[in-house]
Amino acid sequence: MDGEPPLDSALWWERVRTVDDFPKPGVRFYDLLPVFADPDAFAALVSGLAELIAPLHPDLLAAPEARAFLLVGAVADRLRTGVLALRKPGKIPPPTFGEGYQLEYGQAALEAVAEPVPGRKVVILDDVLATGGTVTAAARLAERLGARIAGYAFALEIVALGGRRRLSGGPVVSLRQV
Amino acid sequence: MDGEPPLDSALWWERVRTVDDFPKPGVRFYDLLPVFADPDAFAALVSGLAELIAPLHPDLLAAPEARAFLLVGAVADRLRTGVLALRKPGKIPPPTFGEGYQLEYGQAALEAVAEPVPGRKVVILDDVLATGGTVTAAARLAERLGARIAGYAFALEIVALGGRRRLSGGPVVSLRQV
Repeated sequence: MDGEPPLDSALWWERVRTVDDFPKPGVRFYDLLPVFADPDAFAALVSGLAELIAPLHPDLLAAPEARAFLLVGAVADRLRTGVLALRKPGKIPPPTFGEGYQLEYGQAALEAVAEPVPGRKVVILDDVLATGGTVTAAARLAERLGARIAGYAFALEIVALGGRRRLSGGPVVSLRQV
Repeated sequence: MDGEPPLDSALWWERVRTVDDFPKPGVRFYDLLPVFADPDAFAALVSGLAELIAPLHPDLLAAPEARAFLLVGAVADRLRTGVLALRKPGKIPPPTFGEGYQLEYGQAALEAVAEPVPGRKVVILDDVLATGGTVTAAARLAERLGARIAGYAFALEIVALGGRRRLSGGPVVSLRQV
């Protein structure tokens, strides 16, 4: 915004709450809710993601339920794209398309409205890249709807879990690696 | 945005998909996902909500998981507020605050990070106002965190379900009534 001081791009990271052994022993959980609750930190995070994603020229941003929904609307609004919401099973009235996948801790699936988006360039957005299971399923689902994968974007990438290596079809960008 | 043609405020409504008997017989479900997937309709919806909410001068926008998360980030980014995310139980690492409530079809609960927001002016935002059960619980939770309720905002209000009468502490605004 005109007249506003420039935002410190590291501002959002300082507000992330790190919790060990959640949701189960051995897992380190990065809680971004305190980032969202702070107007300056939230704006810094949205700006950072919008700048990172803009060069990929997406028509649509796809995000898996639910945490990423908090980010995807704001970034899509900045970039003037649509949002392809990928929901947990049973939430969307039929007809839907679904994709099952393996999580870091358990099994899960995603569903989308069965409305094709042929040739649309989609960037998959999530808050945290861990093993990449969710995001891989999200990309498969987008492709089944006819989309082309233009890339993958994350606020935070947990490098040791190797998720980046599982993602194909476009560049993988993240604001911060841990 | 400068140079863009003005958006038709009714544009988003035309993209809502209405589904009878979902998620159970007798319930009419308003599916806003096709609105989000259309860049112009999504921008029109976000603009409409931002204009509706701005006069309430919130410090924070609170939204219940999960559909409203798609909207709240974009509107918060426009108004330069923070987002108070109200999640389903078990998603946020402890310590949390929780509130149970009765749904139109079943029981549910919301949880927030146990980080007080004393005196902050909060507008509760949801996509659809039905019986008001979710939103009443959201307001109680925000108040337990020390917030002051500055109002309630909805894309769509189902007038016959009378949700508006259950909401207290601030004005109730909606973009469209059915």
